[in-house]
Amino acid sequence: MPETQAIEFYFDFSSPYGYLASCQIDRIAEKHGRKVLWRPYLMGAAMKITGRQPLVVQPMIADYSRIDLARSARRAGVKFSLPSPFPVATVAACRAYYWLLDQDEEKAKSLAQALYVAYFVEGRNIGEPEVVLHVARALGIEQEVLSAALQDPKIKNRLKQVTDDAIARGIFGSPFFIVDGEPFWGNDHLREVDEWLEAGGW
Amino acid sequence: MPETQAIEFYFDFSSPYGYLASCQIDRIAEKHGRKVLWRPYLMGAAMKITGRQPLVVQPMIADYSRIDLARSARRAGVKFSLPSPFPVATVAACRAYYWLLDQDEEKAKSLAQALYVAYFVEGRNIGEPEVVLHVARALGIEQEVLSAALQDPKIKNRLKQVTDDAIARGIFGSPFFIVDGEPFWGNDHLREVDEWLEAGGW
Repeated sequence: MPETQAIEFYFDFSSPYGYLASCQIDRIAEKHGRKVLWRPYLMGAAMKITGRQPLVVQPMIADYSRIDLARSARRAGVKFSLPSPFPVATVAACRAYYWLLDQDEEKAKSLAQALYVAYFVEGRNIGEPEVVLHVARALGIEQEVLSAALQDPKIKNRLKQVTDDAIARGIFGSPFFIVDGEPFWGNDHLREVDEWLEAGGW
Repeated sequence: MPETQAIEFYFDFSSPYGYLASCQIDRIAEKHGRKVLWRPYLMGAAMKITGRQPLVVQPMIADYSRIDLARSARRAGVKFSLPSPFPVATVAACRAYYWLLDQDEEKAKSLAQALYVAYFVEGRNIGEPEVVLHVARALGIEQEVLSAALQDPKIKNRLKQVTDDAIARGIFGSPFFIVDGEPFWGNDHLREVDEWLEAGGW
């Protein structure tokens, strides 16, 4: 039954609009009795195909994006500041997430949220595996165990598979939502996702 | 007084999201007692700086855009189909608009709306000056007079000035709104413009 399908939430850990969406999507889904599958992936792989650059490095668009990000964060009532360095590689963050996902889905989501806060609120460089380990430790995850998992070929392959599958399904941005088969790209589309769920499409 | 400032609506005649916004912005402004200044410009000049390509020619993004455009049009309750050729040069359309603007602002807006409908509903190539003349004729504009105006150095310069000024102000997209000094980019931001006007910012 489409009514009970989970919302798929694709995002990159280095994406500011992905972070903003992560603060809001669960609440929206809950209103409609839906679950959210959090799906971090390596958006850089998709950007090699689309040819896009991050907004904040594009001439003219960079200036606008800083205004829009700050305004969108105020609107959502969440803390946000654009970190430096930006963007960063998110391989370790993604691998940590998928390793944890198989053990405890809620805890994996908590890790994803903690990583986003570390980067976009606290300005910590989650591109460094040590930072990922440190963030995970606060959730009670042993550093040695996670450190080994980050090099586990099975986990490496899992992330590659998630990213390949996302691209094969036409997913290229962050945030990117699939709602009952319908794709929605961008934090700006959160409201539309909400209305789509309410109306059952149009 | 900021309360009475007009909303500036920048757009390119070849922009599908600009067309969709053009069907909605006046109604939104009216709710808040605001006027809308329609400002067609040559977005291509800005795209040379930003390095952007139209969405519908970008790999992966093209497929998504077709879905999103059709969905956004249904949502807005307006007819829409992506024309071919796309995009087209909009120099003649813009010049016709600015020539008419000095004589009759309401009629200039009617011409802009008619040009958008010609391109995005009827699939006529408004990149061709003859088509612009034909669309204008339905509004009672003499073809010979307008044809001469399209080559008038004063009108040519007017469009160049509008485009240069837009870029100098950081405007690069379509639609692009300035509301009491605040920039909003994209048809997706129409709702935010509405809420910004209602709340007086946040």
